[in-house]
Amino acid sequence: MPSEDQKRQAMQAYIDALNADDLQGIVDLYAENATVEDPFGTPAKVGKAAIEEFYRGSVALKPRARLSAPIRGSHGDSAAMAFEVTVNLEQGPVVIAVIDVMQFNEAGQFTSMKAYWGPDDMRPAD
Amino acid sequence: MPSEDQKRQAMQAYIDALNADDLQGIVDLYAENATVEDPFGTPAKVGKAAIEEFYRGSVALKPRARLSAPIRGSHGDSAAMAFEVTVNLEQGPVVIAVIDVMQFNEAGQFTSMKAYWGPDDMRPAD
Repeated sequence: MPSEDQKRQAMQAYIDALNADDLQGIVDLYAENATVEDPFGTPAKVGKAAIEEFYRGSVALKPRARLSAPIRGSHGDSAAMAFEVTVNLEQGPVVIAVIDVMQFNEAGQFTSMKAYWGPDDMRPAD
Repeated sequence: MPSEDQKRQAMQAYIDALNADDLQGIVDLYAENATVEDPFGTPAKVGKAAIEEFYRGSVALKPRARLSAPIRGSHGDSAAMAFEVTVNLEQGPVVIAVIDVMQFNEAGQFTSMKAYWGPDDMRPAD
C-alpha cells in the first residue's frame, strides 16, 4: 500500500496538473484499468483511453482548482480532498465545490476516482 | 433517491448530533443494516447495534465537529463533507481532519459511512 505521503503527493500532483492544463500529467496519475465517476452518480469512465478523453474535455475548460482544506489520507488504500474548481463554460465561468476520493494501487496510481458534487454545488464565478 | 436538500440536511444533522453528544440522534440517521468504516481501512462496523456501540465510544470523547467547507452532494445516492473534530483522548484533546462520505437509501438514511483520515490527520488541539 502506498504511504500516506505518497497518496498526499499524488492528490496534490492532480491539483497541480489541472492548474497547468497538463492532460498527460493528469492521465499519468491513473492506473491502466482505473475508473472515474465525475460527478458521482453518472456512468463511470473506464480505462485510460476513456479517462484521457474525459480530461481532454476538462482541460479545454481551463480548470483552476484550489483546496478548500488539507488533503485527508486514510488507514487504507484511499485518500480524499475537498476543493473548488473554476471552469469556463459557454455561459461563463462557474465554480464547482467538489470532494474527490481516490483509491490507489501498490504503485501509488489512482485505481478509482469518485467526485462528489451535485447540481447545487455549482455557482457562477464572482 | 433522496433530494440534494435531504442529503445535506442529514449530513448537517449528523454534525449537530455529534456536537450535542446525542447518541440516539446519531444512530437514528442510520439504516438498519448500515456499515461504518471509521477510519476507512479498518474493519467495518456492520448493523445498527455495532454502530451504536461505536458511537457510544465516540460520544464519550465529547466530539466537537466543525465543517471545513460546505457539504457536497452528488448526482447519485451519496454526499460528502470535510470537517475537523476535536475529541478528548486520555493524553489530551486532539483534532482530527476528516472527510466523511455517506451513501443513502430511499428513506434518506445512511446505508454506509466512510471516514477518510489517516495517522497524519490527527494533531494536538491548540
